[in-house]
Amino acid sequence: MKKLLVVLILSAGARSGAQEKDSLAIRSIYDFFLTESNCYSNLEYLATRIGGRLSGSPQAAAAVEWTRKAMYEAGADTVILQPCLVPRWVRGAPEQCVMTSGKNRKKLRCIALGSSVSSPPEGLEAQVVEVRSFEELDSLGEKAIKGKIVFYNVFFDQRRVNTGQAYGEAVKYRGGGASRAARYGAVACLVRSMTTVADDEPHTGNMNYDSTISRVKIPAVALGYKSATMLHESLRKDPALKVSLTTHCRTLPPVISYNVIGQINGSRNAGEYIIAGGHLDSWDNGQGAHDDGSGVVQSIEVLAAFRKAGIRPYRSIRAVAFMNEENGLAGGKAYADSAARKNEIHIAAIESDAGGFVPRGFGVDTINGLYRATAGWRHLFEPYFIDHFVRGGWGADLLALQTAGVPGIGFLPDMQRYFDIHHSAQDTFDKINKRELELGGAAITAMVYMLDRYFPATR
Amino acid sequence: MKKLLVVLILSAGARSGAQEKDSLAIRSIYDFFLTESNCYSNLEYLATRIGGRLSGSPQAAAAVEWTRKAMYEAGADTVILQPCLVPRWVRGAPEQCVMTSGKNRKKLRCIALGSSVSSPPEGLEAQVVEVRSFEELDSLGEKAIKGKIVFYNVFFDQRRVNTGQAYGEAVKYRGGGASRAARYGAVACLVRSMTTVADDEPHTGNMNYDSTISRVKIPAVALGYKSATMLHESLRKDPALKVSLTTHCRTLPPVISYNVIGQINGSRNAGEYIIAGGHLDSWDNGQGAHDDGSGVVQSIEVLAAFRKAGIRPYRSIRAVAFMNEENGLAGGKAYADSAARKNEIHIAAIESDAGGFVPRGFGVDTINGLYRATAGWRHLFEPYFIDHFVRGGWGADLLALQTAGVPGIGFLPDMQRYFDIHHSAQDTFDKINKRELELGGAAITAMVYMLDRYFPATR
Repeated sequence: MKKLLVVLILSAGARSGAQEKDSLAIRSIYDFFLTESNCYSNLEYLATRIGGRLSGSPQAAAAVEWTRKAMYEAGADTVILQPCLVPRWVRGAPEQCVMTSGKNRKKLRCIALGSSVSSPPEGLEAQVVEVRSFEELDSLGEKAIKGKIVFYNVFFDQRRVNTGQAYGEAVKYRGGGASRAARYGAVACLVRSMTTVADDEPHTGNMNYDSTISRVKIPAVALGYKSATMLHESLRKDPALKVSLTTHCRTLPPVISYNVIGQINGSRNAGEYIIAGGHLDSWDNGQGAHDDGSGVVQSIEVLAAFRKAGIRPYRSIRAVAFMNEENGLAGGKAYADSAARKNEIHIAAIESDAGGFVPRGFGVDTINGLYRATAGWRHLFEPYFIDHFVRGGWGADLLALQTAGVPGIGFLPDMQRYFDIHHSAQDTFDKINKRELELGGAAITAMVYMLDRYFPATR
Repeated sequence: MKKLLVVLILSAGARSGAQEKDSLAIRSIYDFFLTESNCYSNLEYLATRIGGRLSGSPQAAAAVEWTRKAMYEAGADTVILQPCLVPRWVRGAPEQCVMTSGKNRKKLRCIALGSSVSSPPEGLEAQVVEVRSFEELDSLGEKAIKGKIVFYNVFFDQRRVNTGQAYGEAVKYRGGGASRAARYGAVACLVRSMTTVADDEPHTGNMNYDSTISRVKIPAVALGYKSATMLHESLRKDPALKVSLTTHCRTLPPVISYNVIGQINGSRNAGEYIIAGGHLDSWDNGQGAHDDGSGVVQSIEVLAAFRKAGIRPYRSIRAVAFMNEENGLAGGKAYADSAARKNEIHIAAIESDAGGFVPRGFGVDTINGLYRATAGWRHLFEPYFIDHFVRGGWGADLLALQTAGVPGIGFLPDMQRYFDIHHSAQDTFDKINKRELELGGAAITAMVYMLDRYFPATR
C-alpha cells in the first residue's frame, strides 16, 4: 500500500512536471507570436503585393515562389515544391448585369462564379424566374423556366450563430444551381451572395456543372445582397422584367502548379509527420487575406515558432501551403497521393481555413482517439481563451488525407465576421487584426507541439 | 422506493420541460437580435450624430434626451432621468507637444489626460526624464527630476492574452503618475498610450491628483505609441533634449446630469429589479462607439427583446445608461444611493463595458451564490458559443451596488481589439460589427431572462 502510494505520488509528480514543462513551452510559443512573429508582415506582402491568386494565375505562381522563400526564412530545413495539375479559369473583363423594366434600367452588382462558362460575347437577355429552393424550381418545371434566367433568392440565415452552418445551407445553390436550372431549359442562373452583411458586394466562389443533371452549361453569377433585394422587389412589381448578363470568363487548359511544403526535421522520429496548413490560392476579386492568406502565414510561422522558441520537435513538422483549394482541391489530393506513395506516417494534420480571427478552439477528428486526446489537453489551452473543442476535423485540403486515415484538426477561429468578406472584393489585408492573427498562429503551434509530444503514431 | 422513483421521474420531466422552455426563449431572444433589433442603427445615431459625450458636455445632455426616447421606443413602461452631479472637464484647443534636439524639432502626437490641469497658456518647456516604473522614479528622486518632465515609458504588455489585465498593469501610470512625479518637482508628465497597436493615436483616459502625495498639480498627457518610441530613441542620442507642451484643458464647475433608466414592470414581483447597463458618457476625442455606446444600445435592446420576443418578465427589468463612468462614477453612486434610500430589492446587475465585440462569457460575482447558479445555466449558453464563465463580477458603474451587496455580472466580449481603439479618436462607429454587437445584446438578454426566472431574491 505504501509502495503503491509512493508510485502514485512519483507518477503524479512526473505528470505535473511534464504539465509544467508543456505549459511553459506553450507560453513561450505565445510570447513569440505576440512579440516577434512575422505573420502580419508576411500577410501584408502576400495580400497587398501579390494579391488575389487564383490557381494557375501569374499571382499564384508568384505566391509559390514567395512562400518558398518565406518558409526558408522561417527556419525550414527543406522546402519542397510539390507539383499538381490545376484548372485555369479566368474571369476576363468585369461582368455586367442590367435589369430592365419598361423604361427603367438598373445595374445590378454581380460577379461570375468560378468555373462558370461565359455568356455569349454580346451578352444574353431574358425574363427572370425567382425561386427560394430546389423544390420550388422542380415544382415550376420546364414550362415556367425554359428560356428564362433562374434567380435563386436564398438568404444566408442570419439567425445561425454558427455562420459556417448558414453558409453550408445556402452554398448548394451556388454550387449546383446552374445544372438544376439548365435541366429545365434556363439560360443563366443568378444566386444571392452568401453574406452576413446587407451591403452590395457580390461574393464569388466555385460552382460545378453536373452532367448527370444537364449537359448544358449555362452562365452562373452571384448578385450583391442589395442588388438581389432590388431584383426581388422589382419582380414583384413587374414579373416580366428582363435581365441582361454579359460575362467574359473562360476555362483555359490546366497548368502545373505547386503545394509548398516547408519542413523542420524531427529530432527523434523524423519519419513521422505533423502538418499545419492553409491554402495558398485565393479568389481573384479580393486579396485572399482571410481566405486563406492567414492560414498560410500562420502555418509558415509554426516553423518560425519552433525555431525561435527553441523547441526541438520529435517528429518532423511540415507547414503546407496547399494549392487549388478554391476550385479543385488538386493540392490536397497531390499531397495525400504523395504521402501514400512514400508510405509517410502522418500523425495528424491541422488546417487553418476559416479566417485569421480570434481563436475559439479546434474541431477534431475522433479517428485514432484524437478528439479524446486533445480534449485532455484542454486545460493547457484555456488560459489562452481557447475553450471550444468539438468533434469533427475540418479543412477541405485535408479531405484526401483524412480519407486515408490521417486524423484532421480544423482550427476554429471566431467566424462572425468571416462571411462579411468571404470570396468578395472586401477580403483585404485591412480586415486583418494583428493580434487575432498571431493568437491563431500561436494556438495552432501549441496544438502541433502537443501532438508532437504526446499523440502516438498508428501504423 | 417506487414512489421515490416516480417523484424523481416527474421532477426530471418538469425540469427538462423547463429547460426546453428556457432554451426556446433564449432562441427567440437571439432570433430577435439577429433579425430585428435596433442595436446597430441606435449606435450609429449615438456615435455618429451625437458623437463623443464627456460628462457635462452638450453632447452628453443630448445623449440623455436621445436615450430617453430610445428606451420608450424599445418598449419601456417608464423612463426615469436620475440626477447626479458630474465634473465638467473640457479639453479646449488641441494639445501641442514638440521635441527639440539641437536644430531638430519634431511634433509628438499627444492628448491631455482627463482631469489634468493645463500648461501655462504660453506652454512649458523642459528636459525629460524617462522612467519605466514608479520604483525607478523613486530611485532617481528630486535631484534628477526637479524642473523636468517625467516620461513614463511603460509598455502595454502585448504578451497578455487577457488584454484587460495588461491594461490594468499599465494604467496606474496614467492614473497616478502626475502626483508621483510632482512630488519630486516635475513640471509635467507624459505617459505612453495604453494600446495594443503600434500606431500613433494617443489614447486618453482619466487621471487623478493625489494631494497626500503632492499638492502640486502638473499637466499630464498621453503620447501616441510611435511618438513615445521616437522620444525614447531621441533621448538615447540626446539626453538633454527638450520637450515643449501646450494644453488648454480646464475644469469648470460641476453640473447636473442624469442616469437614464428604462423599466419594464415585472408581472409577478414588480418590486424586484434586474439591471442591464452600460455608460452613456464617453471620451471627447472619439465617438464612444465601443466605449460604451455599445453597452448602452445593448441595454436598451434588452427591453425591446422582452417586448418583441413576447416574454413577460416576472421581475422589473431596468436598462440603465449610467452617466460619468469615465471621470467620476457619479452615476453609479447616484443609482446605488437611490436604491438604498428606496429599499429597492436588486436581484442582480449586469454591465456591458468592454466593447461591442463577440461574446465569450460572463464574469460573475460569487455573492449570494450567483456564480454557482449561472455556471449551472452554462449548457443553455454554449450553443451560442458562450463558454467562458469566470468568477468576479465586473463593471465600474456597478461598484457601489456591489458594495451594497447586489451581485454583479460583467459581460465579457472578446477583448483582443478593444485596446486598439479604447479612449482614442479611433473609437468610432465603423469599428463596430453588426452581428458581434447583436450577439452581445442577445447574450445579456438571455442572462437577464435566466436571472428573472431562476435567481432568488435575498432580503
